[in-house]
Amino acid sequence: MKAQDVKRAIEYRQLIDVLMGNGYADIVLYRGNVINVVSGEIYRADVAIKGKYILMVGDAENLIGEKTLVVDLQGKYVSPGFIDSHMHFESSMLTITEFSRLSIPSGTTTLVADPHEIGNALGPVGIKAMADEIANVPNHVHLVIPSLTPDCPKLETAGYDITSKDMEELLNYKNIIGIGELQGFSNAKHVYRNTPEIIDDLLASTSYAKSIGKIVDGNAPELFGAELAAHIITTGGKCSCHETTTKEECVEKIRQGVYVFMREGSTQKNMAECIRAYTEEGLDTRRMILATDDMVAADLETLGHMNEIIRRTIKQGIEPVKAIQMATINPAEYFNLQDRGALLPGKLADIAVISDLEEMKVDAVFIEGKLVSAKGKLLIDLPKYVYPESVKNSVKCEKISEVDIMIKTNKNMARVRCIELIPDQNLTGALEEEMRVSSGVILPDTSKDVLEMICVERYGRRGTIGKTFVKGFGLKQGAFAESVSHDAHNIIAVGCNLRDIVSAVNRVIEIGGGIAISNNGRILEELRLPVGGLITDELNGHEVSEKIMQMERIARETLGCRVHAPFMHLSFLALTTSPKWKITDMGLVDVNNFKILETVVT
Amino acid sequence: MKAQDVKRAIEYRQLIDVLMGNGYADIVLYRGNVINVVSGEIYRADVAIKGKYILMVGDAENLIGEKTLVVDLQGKYVSPGFIDSHMHFESSMLTITEFSRLSIPSGTTTLVADPHEIGNALGPVGIKAMADEIANVPNHVHLVIPSLTPDCPKLETAGYDITSKDMEELLNYKNIIGIGELQGFSNAKHVYRNTPEIIDDLLASTSYAKSIGKIVDGNAPELFGAELAAHIITTGGKCSCHETTTKEECVEKIRQGVYVFMREGSTQKNMAECIRAYTEEGLDTRRMILATDDMVAADLETLGHMNEIIRRTIKQGIEPVKAIQMATINPAEYFNLQDRGALLPGKLADIAVISDLEEMKVDAVFIEGKLVSAKGKLLIDLPKYVYPESVKNSVKCEKISEVDIMIKTNKNMARVRCIELIPDQNLTGALEEEMRVSSGVILPDTSKDVLEMICVERYGRRGTIGKTFVKGFGLKQGAFAESVSHDAHNIIAVGCNLRDIVSAVNRVIEIGGGIAISNNGRILEELRLPVGGLITDELNGHEVSEKIMQMERIARETLGCRVHAPFMHLSFLALTTSPKWKITDMGLVDVNNFKILETVVT
Repeated sequence: MKAQDVKRAIEYRQLIDVLMGNGYADIVLYRGNVINVVSGEIYRADVAIKGKYILMVGDAENLIGEKTLVVDLQGKYVSPGFIDSHMHFESSMLTITEFSRLSIPSGTTTLVADPHEIGNALGPVGIKAMADEIANVPNHVHLVIPSLTPDCPKLETAGYDITSKDMEELLNYKNIIGIGELQGFSNAKHVYRNTPEIIDDLLASTSYAKSIGKIVDGNAPELFGAELAAHIITTGGKCSCHETTTKEECVEKIRQGVYVFMREGSTQKNMAECIRAYTEEGLDTRRMILATDDMVAADLETLGHMNEIIRRTIKQGIEPVKAIQMATINPAEYFNLQDRGALLPGKLADIAVISDLEEMKVDAVFIEGKLVSAKGKLLIDLPKYVYPESVKNSVKCEKISEVDIMIKTNKNMARVRCIELIPDQNLTGALEEEMRVSSGVILPDTSKDVLEMICVERYGRRGTIGKTFVKGFGLKQGAFAESVSHDAHNIIAVGCNLRDIVSAVNRVIEIGGGIAISNNGRILEELRLPVGGLITDELNGHEVSEKIMQMERIARETLGCRVHAPFMHLSFLALTTSPKWKITDMGLVDVNNFKILETVVT
Repeated sequence: MKAQDVKRAIEYRQLIDVLMGNGYADIVLYRGNVINVVSGEIYRADVAIKGKYILMVGDAENLIGEKTLVVDLQGKYVSPGFIDSHMHFESSMLTITEFSRLSIPSGTTTLVADPHEIGNALGPVGIKAMADEIANVPNHVHLVIPSLTPDCPKLETAGYDITSKDMEELLNYKNIIGIGELQGFSNAKHVYRNTPEIIDDLLASTSYAKSIGKIVDGNAPELFGAELAAHIITTGGKCSCHETTTKEECVEKIRQGVYVFMREGSTQKNMAECIRAYTEEGLDTRRMILATDDMVAADLETLGHMNEIIRRTIKQGIEPVKAIQMATINPAEYFNLQDRGALLPGKLADIAVISDLEEMKVDAVFIEGKLVSAKGKLLIDLPKYVYPESVKNSVKCEKISEVDIMIKTNKNMARVRCIELIPDQNLTGALEEEMRVSSGVILPDTSKDVLEMICVERYGRRGTIGKTFVKGFGLKQGAFAESVSHDAHNIIAVGCNLRDIVSAVNRVIEIGGGIAISNNGRILEELRLPVGGLITDELNGHEVSEKIMQMERIARETLGCRVHAPFMHLSFLALTTSPKWKITDMGLVDVNNFKILETVVT
């Protein structure tokens, strides 16, 4: 037995003593309206706490002694702390510590994070560094890890190739509870047709995970019928999907047993559509779960976190207790987190006190019996976390020159393939455009909004640079580049001319990862992301928000960018798991056919 | 990794091939009405099966090849096979094999058995012998084991003292998935007051079980509030109760997170009361589960098994799909049996085909993709199972004589304590009676229906004999004795005179355990129970039913017994976990005060 199991037995013995009349509660939350996510009720009751644990919920008069802290809630609501079931710290560019600083006051006490961005960039070193940071925070953070990096090994280069060989090391590391999204098989029939060996490797990973009692998430956007069944079986049978976007898809997923993580993040919002599987079709909600996937710091600061997602869910016309189940007991059961998810005897006293249920206004937050936040303010000292050098300087490529990124032809006019950016979507369109040629080089054309986009392998492994065109950003001058590009996170850049693209890319290389904007060969603004080229451990959430806003303003006002959140949009143009065309360090990718296409049509 | 995990991965790979278009289903259950216990719906769909597993549920046209067996269900209902979540084979006196022979045709594909009777009689040897038998049957059988035998170590003698020292050996043995009913702490405050050391030992056992990922059932009849909370915490937090008898108790249990196993067995029927927590109070049903606890062979033969319990549940006014959830997905989630409980991709193809949903008429049963039963007839060869000698001859005590069982006094009339039998209840009343004395011996008095009852320690450990009086059987002559007496299973006997009591007890000793009826010093009938004195491996279910009916007829017609099922009623008069007075080998027990009482009031 692990020491922690023995310790809990000893603590439990003390709880039993108190319940049997030998001692008193430490804290009694008196006369609240308890949200019972097991019975599905809300009713008047007290919550008695001893040490880290809930003693009982009910009439706690007999458990109140002289030293018991009695908090009269006067009818305020008492909920289990909230669980975010699928999220990426990397999307916020924040450390776990800074994210927690923002999310705890809104009642989130458990975060299940998939570090697949840093996994792509750094492999096990990065994932373990993140798992190590968890010791720094008072909330519960668990990691579910990638089983495959990069998503499409034949089409792109990541910093490290995670495969089944890494599972034993990773899955037995502290704070890692399973495998996260199975990006390698969300596109089931294309993967099966083109790289069936990946199925074998994924099955090896998921089977091992299951054999040691770990979770396997999966992820099955737009899969139905036999394809969905194949995906489910690849995960080992129990799985989730956090990219379900229509009611029909949600119905199909639930019918096939998938836990639907209804996503409601900073950009992708699928809850309102998914919830119709209950509000219109009446499906059992026990496998419906709320998750954010990707949240930016500004939204955490201004809107809140899981409380805001629950609030929106209630607004869709579902009973508050059912919405709260989706962020408490439902995920606790999915993840087999037996010590939380409901206010029950012996569970951890992770509690959100709510003053307004419809608005999900969180008044106070307890974690393991300790008051950690009140009125939106963190009450505990949460030291800033600095990452070790081992996860910094992840950018190992040489600087580039204009010659490296020229798209050439021997014709006077060229017909080129061009990715079409679709705002607020991961999927893209596929266009062909006629372009002017100067000295054998095909030039970006701002009049048509056809810009050059490149992707520079940044890990010093292949030295490859993918080059193509993109339509939709609307830049009139300049360029920007970033070391955030899903999921392999090479340096992606878009620009109106080669000089500015080179300048922005080389600045990202110089600062060891981050985002840079250039114009006329000069860097206008930059954000350093020293941890894996993805995260800053230098700025806090507010500072990151300010910096991003400032950079977006420059992109809009100086460069003329027409798309909102341009850095996030650019970062998804390398994602090889969603159709149609994407760019990687190996070139223009036809996602559905697993092919590299020539940019110049011959 | 275990070989079985690897094997499953290989099998799963084959399923994926079929789903991706390379191959066909073995069987398609075509055009049935699928009972989807996850979505809570019933709808037209096909169920495709490959090998042991479900490929998918939906439109399976593309999975039908030339060799696929297509069974046109023409709208019959297709349900996951049923799970009995808490049962004792010993109550049926049948081997696992003979019980399975009777229960499979009614759609039960999984049995979770608590071998705490044989555990009391034989300890680990008996439990492991039962775990070994499981290899003989095609259905899924899992054991949850006792963590403490006897129930009250200070008040009774069992064949073996199971404590936390045995947990490592037992919980890691094949087919054992956890700890069963925590008899030692169902009577929480009395146990706490009288034998607090038991709490420590139970916590050691449950903590160990949890640390290796095992289940802990618990059992909390009539516990509320702080006492219930203490019981829950003793189990490690996640627990069940299969002795909840009122709606109010069911509401309290569910509110405190207990999985309520609504019992509906041969004698104890609590479902109709418990279900009102849903039908009247609207509580979430996900923690409501059906179980039989104790079933006799005759009921299995004539009524059915879980299908009958589900039928009765539907009759209480709940939706069929909800009732079926209570015997499929709800227990599968409780026991973390991830490979079954719902008809989903990759789950075992354990299936009940139902022709009439309201009547729960089971037409056909599949286990792991194999048709094992049709129209109530088993289609597979199920060899009779004979237990090893190591679990036989469990009766090791010396024969007794009349002198051994005399209740003496030096007065002419005696005031005695007398247990009051309450039909169909485990709990008893406590009476005092004035009795005649002859030559210093207090004699049973049939005119008052005050009979002598004894309990003979049968394991050769203490040599103790408990003696007292009982009212309620109504015998006019003779006696009967049995080696079945909950939970320590010493030889219990009741009779109108000492000679017949001695004769019946000694016959039970001679035959190595069983039941014997005597009158005028002659044995009228007997049933040998050679396995631990509890189970026959000589007779099948039908033969046991016939024998018991014959013996009950003799008890009624020849001896004048007024209570139905007299052997079962007698066997529960030794149960020290329910109030008020009981008999053990150590004497008359005041259950609530943990005291041995003198039978003769001084």
